[in-house]
Amino acid sequence: MRTQIATLGEFGLIDRLTKSIRLTNETSLKGVGDDAAVLDLGTKKTLVTTDLLLEGIHFDLTYVPLKHLGYKAAVVNFSDIYAMNGRPQQITVSIAISKRFSVEDLEAFYDGIKFACETYGVDLVGGDTSSSMTGFAISITCIGIADGDKIVYRDGAKPTDLLCVSGDLGAAYMGLQLLVREKKVFNGKQQGEVQPDFAGREYLLERQLKPEARKDIVALFAANDILPTSMIDISDGLSSETLHLCKQSNVGCRIFEDRIPIDYQTAAMAETFNMNVTTAALNGGEDYELLFTVPLQMHEKVSLLNGIHIIGHITKPTFGCNLVTRDSQELKLRAQGWNII
Amino acid sequence: MRTQIATLGEFGLIDRLTKSIRLTNETSLKGVGDDAAVLDLGTKKTLVTTDLLLEGIHFDLTYVPLKHLGYKAAVVNFSDIYAMNGRPQQITVSIAISKRFSVEDLEAFYDGIKFACETYGVDLVGGDTSSSMTGFAISITCIGIADGDKIVYRDGAKPTDLLCVSGDLGAAYMGLQLLVREKKVFNGKQQGEVQPDFAGREYLLERQLKPEARKDIVALFAANDILPTSMIDISDGLSSETLHLCKQSNVGCRIFEDRIPIDYQTAAMAETFNMNVTTAALNGGEDYELLFTVPLQMHEKVSLLNGIHIIGHITKPTFGCNLVTRDSQELKLRAQGWNII
Repeated sequence: MRTQIATLGEFGLIDRLTKSIRLTNETSLKGVGDDAAVLDLGTKKTLVTTDLLLEGIHFDLTYVPLKHLGYKAAVVNFSDIYAMNGRPQQITVSIAISKRFSVEDLEAFYDGIKFACETYGVDLVGGDTSSSMTGFAISITCIGIADGDKIVYRDGAKPTDLLCVSGDLGAAYMGLQLLVREKKVFNGKQQGEVQPDFAGREYLLERQLKPEARKDIVALFAANDILPTSMIDISDGLSSETLHLCKQSNVGCRIFEDRIPIDYQTAAMAETFNMNVTTAALNGGEDYELLFTVPLQMHEKVSLLNGIHIIGHITKPTFGCNLVTRDSQELKLRAQGWNII
Repeated sequence: MRTQIATLGEFGLIDRLTKSIRLTNETSLKGVGDDAAVLDLGTKKTLVTTDLLLEGIHFDLTYVPLKHLGYKAAVVNFSDIYAMNGRPQQITVSIAISKRFSVEDLEAFYDGIKFACETYGVDLVGGDTSSSMTGFAISITCIGIADGDKIVYRDGAKPTDLLCVSGDLGAAYMGLQLLVREKKVFNGKQQGEVQPDFAGREYLLERQLKPEARKDIVALFAANDILPTSMIDISDGLSSETLHLCKQSNVGCRIFEDRIPIDYQTAAMAETFNMNVTTAALNGGEDYELLFTVPLQMHEKVSLLNGIHIIGHITKPTFGCNLVTRDSQELKLRAQGWNII
């Protein structure tokens, strides 16, 4: 089934994409369909984060199905709210599309968004659709709430604090490498001749195509009465995010290479590809794990928590931000932001 | 001066563009520089609106200077908040840029954004920057506040209500026609040979290049104790917006052609171009005036307000949405949304 968008027009398309949207949060008073959404955020503090994603820069539709793209685009915004120790409540979704896309394509994308919203208890409350001459553009804004005294910023890390990370790192990057390799193999053969070789690497693909935000870690903090001194989510890689935390907190740090959590599949894939797995963790990005600091006194409490790893500690700013390698060398961490190609 | 973006990189660029940003609203607790902005919206209701603008679809940089583009991109979002009878408080600005743009270009764009924020008392609290392969993409989200019982939706119009509009219509569209014509003249000649002929048409250009949102009308409502029954801002043209109001309110309407407010310059320009000025008002768009309804009993009160025109009235839904022409014919209003080209 492939319905041309032209058969529905703008308003028909919006009706079709939004007709199944239901508001479930008490804080969502009015959703899609007016000049603005209306929220009742009461006496909590409001958190706002936003992302702009372009085809060819942030995603490649030859690797990622549209439903997964929708899921991921929503989840990465939820991740920013969790990184403030908050709870995501609403999102707005704006898209621009060229005529290469059908109504069913956009429904698949919205299905992914809606599934993410259901999974995380978030309401889709508005957006904007328009045409594009050059592929798919997505802009998502997420609104969250938090108690004012529970918000965790990037600038609160103090010397001697422990540097911790949730989950494991580098898997999403290795998943991307796997997809790139399989595409190359596929392109060299006739269709049907090869089956992609993903067996035993499902975790890597899932981390790349269907990442999750760490709602559970924020709940774990609340249940264990832990308030991190600083926190950020890992979208660009451990290296960049650590530098952000340290710069804004005006501190240095030491990360121990042998403490960086790496999944077995990530390590095995890196070996197959002859890549350094620490580099994948430091610079790969898209892990959406939480990187945070807690006071040294919390060492025992944090050590006992499942899924949390202490990977280093905070120092005075004069020491800089360093990685202590397995052979005890100290290397300076380097930032990785995008640059114009 | 033309500094390559590559000389600053992502984080240098963000520092440069955001270093002069100051927060002025009490509701803005934390702006640019963390995973999310933090707002304290107290016991008011929160309004959220968002827009995605792409070069070549929503704007053409051969007509519009980047500073004006920034101003307009911000103001059109403020307009959506005023259209709910609210007050804009914060915006987030995300951009994606190709290497065609210099640091100075982006500073000009941000200067426009900041000037709009100063003019309307709004804080810039966050955003996202990334690279693009195909020109300039802009996504803006605006957060506003309103008293819960003062929010005006699109769905409250009732039969016999008066249909009103602020300011005048069609000027922004005629301004665009003027720019298109001058570009054609310019392209046929050598540089320096011709001067654009904009004399006596400054108002049209200003309406196209530097539109304003009707903050003053919302203040006028408050000062005169007027609460419209429904409201929308005119971004796509009077015709589309009237149909939105009527559809959501489940009513019909009659608009009288001779009541549609048209500025002298708009009318003169339409005559020069041999265009129907009513068509420019109905379908031209980008006026960012407010279209609203009030109960019939407010006729005298509204008539006395400067800058407000009563252009028709609301009917039962069975009568449909009609324009009564100067020669007393009734024509059905038609929607104009975008469609895939």
